[in-house]
Amino acid sequence: MKIHIAFALLASAAALPAFATTITPEADPVQIALEHDKIAWEITEGLTTEVGARQGGTEAEARGRAWALAYLRKAGFANVREEAFDMPTWVRGEERAWVVSPFPQKFAITALGNSSSTGDAGLEAEVAYFPTVDALRAAPDGSLTGKIAFVNHNMQPTQDGSSYGAFGVARFAGPNIAAKKGALAIVIRSIGTDHNHRNPHTGNTNFEAGVNPIPAAALSIPDADNLARMIQRGKPVTLRLLLTPQNIGMQKSGNVIAELPGSNTALPPIVIACHLDSWDLGTGAIDDAAGCGIITAAASAIKGMKRKRTIRLLWAGAEEVGIWGGKAYAEANKTVPHALAMESDFGADRVWRVDFRLPESAKPLADRIAARLAPLGIGRGKDAASGGADVGAIIAAQNLGVIDLQQDGRRYFDLHHTPDDTLSMIDKAQLRQNVAAWTAVLSELANYEGELTIAPKP
Amino acid sequence: MKIHIAFALLASAAALPAFATTITPEADPVQIALEHDKIAWEITEGLTTEVGARQGGTEAEARGRAWALAYLRKAGFANVREEAFDMPTWVRGEERAWVVSPFPQKFAITALGNSSSTGDAGLEAEVAYFPTVDALRAAPDGSLTGKIAFVNHNMQPTQDGSSYGAFGVARFAGPNIAAKKGALAIVIRSIGTDHNHRNPHTGNTNFEAGVNPIPAAALSIPDADNLARMIQRGKPVTLRLLLTPQNIGMQKSGNVIAELPGSNTALPPIVIACHLDSWDLGTGAIDDAAGCGIITAAASAIKGMKRKRTIRLLWAGAEEVGIWGGKAYAEANKTVPHALAMESDFGADRVWRVDFRLPESAKPLADRIAARLAPLGIGRGKDAASGGADVGAIIAAQNLGVIDLQQDGRRYFDLHHTPDDTLSMIDKAQLRQNVAAWTAVLSELANYEGELTIAPKP
Repeated sequence: MKIHIAFALLASAAALPAFATTITPEADPVQIALEHDKIAWEITEGLTTEVGARQGGTEAEARGRAWALAYLRKAGFANVREEAFDMPTWVRGEERAWVVSPFPQKFAITALGNSSSTGDAGLEAEVAYFPTVDALRAAPDGSLTGKIAFVNHNMQPTQDGSSYGAFGVARFAGPNIAAKKGALAIVIRSIGTDHNHRNPHTGNTNFEAGVNPIPAAALSIPDADNLARMIQRGKPVTLRLLLTPQNIGMQKSGNVIAELPGSNTALPPIVIACHLDSWDLGTGAIDDAAGCGIITAAASAIKGMKRKRTIRLLWAGAEEVGIWGGKAYAEANKTVPHALAMESDFGADRVWRVDFRLPESAKPLADRIAARLAPLGIGRGKDAASGGADVGAIIAAQNLGVIDLQQDGRRYFDLHHTPDDTLSMIDKAQLRQNVAAWTAVLSELANYEGELTIAPKP
Repeated sequence: MKIHIAFALLASAAALPAFATTITPEADPVQIALEHDKIAWEITEGLTTEVGARQGGTEAEARGRAWALAYLRKAGFANVREEAFDMPTWVRGEERAWVVSPFPQKFAITALGNSSSTGDAGLEAEVAYFPTVDALRAAPDGSLTGKIAFVNHNMQPTQDGSSYGAFGVARFAGPNIAAKKGALAIVIRSIGTDHNHRNPHTGNTNFEAGVNPIPAAALSIPDADNLARMIQRGKPVTLRLLLTPQNIGMQKSGNVIAELPGSNTALPPIVIACHLDSWDLGTGAIDDAAGCGIITAAASAIKGMKRKRTIRLLWAGAEEVGIWGGKAYAEANKTVPHALAMESDFGADRVWRVDFRLPESAKPLADRIAARLAPLGIGRGKDAASGGADVGAIIAAQNLGVIDLQQDGRRYFDLHHTPDDTLSMIDKAQLRQNVAAWTAVLSELANYEGELTIAPKP
């Protein structure tokens, strides 16, 4: 029960005064976190209050970058800079949906990224029902001509977020499948787990080259339930959609980078990442201001200790809309050897497991890290760590070592990509536990001089 | 612990088969509810699926009346009829809000009923902050000229719903106060308790004769928190509002009435009420399709027993927008003597208390009712029962007896008047307990031949 006691201490320690101390690798990460978790809150609160929604490629994201550059400079990081890139940009327009017959009423709907427009006149058609994306796949080609496909899967929350892969395909691939089968448009049950709340979940979809994009949107879960009940009554259901998103061409975006220099410049850096952009519906608190807060607070927490290896912070741009920042980072930094990558991009709920992807020689390091995380209620997993979206390209390019601090995902998909992703959803005690865990890991990595990449190097 | 055991039995009994029985006043209300609670669900599911939102005075409410008339006739009630009336009608238009400076971002907002329009050009002004409606009241006359007032109270959930009275005044009266002090517009923190969800709560407000209505709207609670954080930073905050509601003049509405006749026509009827209309944002499941479901299921449950006194069902029209149905009912039925009134209009969560307003002579009846409710986990309160909005006028006009089956209100104001008021929020086990409680009460009232009104009669 040591784990629970440690976590209870952590959760109740908010009221303790901050104290000055020289941080050493041996310092209790709980104590370090107590001193620095306010940085995680400050960043999350600041970005959501002073910037708000900050979609990749928009003016709001540019204000977010300015905010980030100013914050990181003021916080005393080195080499704070922006690495700009251009990216194609899609922006939301009007979005409305109505049942025309047999039971006229409005639905709560939101367009998926890369949806085409219905035009200002909207679009009206009969609904073709598919309980799963596999059922949509099985529909004969051409059978959807003139219809609106409706995919009504049954996503449930999972602690490790694995249901996003299993059900997210309805969003990632469903619109492309429906378009190829001749559908006029597609609506999906939101890729989400909030069965009670009437906020649809947005997110990107993609159409293959040569496939004409169709209007593609998500219904809130209560609305998807309602549409399913109407369909169960056996009469044809006619839906009207008005979705007027636009592609506004290539726009500026950028990554924000900062460093905590190590004393041995021959050692390749550790890169720790989050993403600065958010979807446009919420204020991007859990996705992913909190991630930027967590990594930055942890890096701040080890400022006072001796460090051999440089820690590089990557606040990536334009993740949600196509991981443009992560790809631009890998390209711009391809001649810079890196050692290991980590990312925080799964909310701010507590870390429950650590996974590694390290060379065999680094097993003692992994053992030390696991031992330091255990008192925070974090178990050691057996999965290979995979990093996050924004470090995916640099990991693949340089075959980097990876450590994943897996967060509890049970309520993440209640909020993900909805207007509900706001500061109100952040649990300060769990945010603090994240900072403590990251601090423990970084304090080990900062002084590890062994090899961290995986052989063979590409 | 008898209460908890009884309630657990009730909650777990859903899987039992229905069974035929001759219902008597002595029958266990739990057994009666098992047989008839499906009617409560059927009405709630039917109105939310086949009609959806049904604002008073609109075409959607007329569809709701047609649905109700057909349902009640099919269910075998007597004298099923509509009593029509006309009412002034306000309808929602566009509604948007943005912070212009210093931190540009969009807010989730909804107009309050009777708000005036900003016009299509919108309105932009500095925000004047008031933590409470009393602080707004204390502002000097004229001090709000050219400003948007913002009232940011701190409503919390209460089991008996009493916080609606305490904090609801910000909505009921705040706009009128702000208008008199020269404000251009007013935004209030939603009268609600869902601190995490980004759905604003609508509801009526009223302006005194001689006061020019101003645009009046509610921010979602996370948005109100965000605006408050911006204001705390000390710089003036400029807000832009676009609200284009309209008054569309006198429209048709109506009450739907049905009866379960008693054998002694000399005994004045019991009137049991709910309201058929809903606000336009949700589908009106908890407010108040479930109420209509509960009273109708309970009346159905006593159909098989001998009854001396007529039970009259009132599915009132246009409650939300000014209690037009309740007032029309009292006027249209002023020459019909009534005995007692009850209403279900506080969601579908469990009944936890019964309150009475009866003549002294009816004390044995109250004792019997309380004894029958105890096994359902319902305690006996000491408050004077007051009825509900739709029976308020007839109670006052005829000094009727009243019984209140008080529902648990702890999550009611999470959903009240928001898009989240959908079927997904109905808890079947709690809905069933309501039907059981109402059935127990009606089975006693239906054969009570004593006086139920309060002396002196008006």
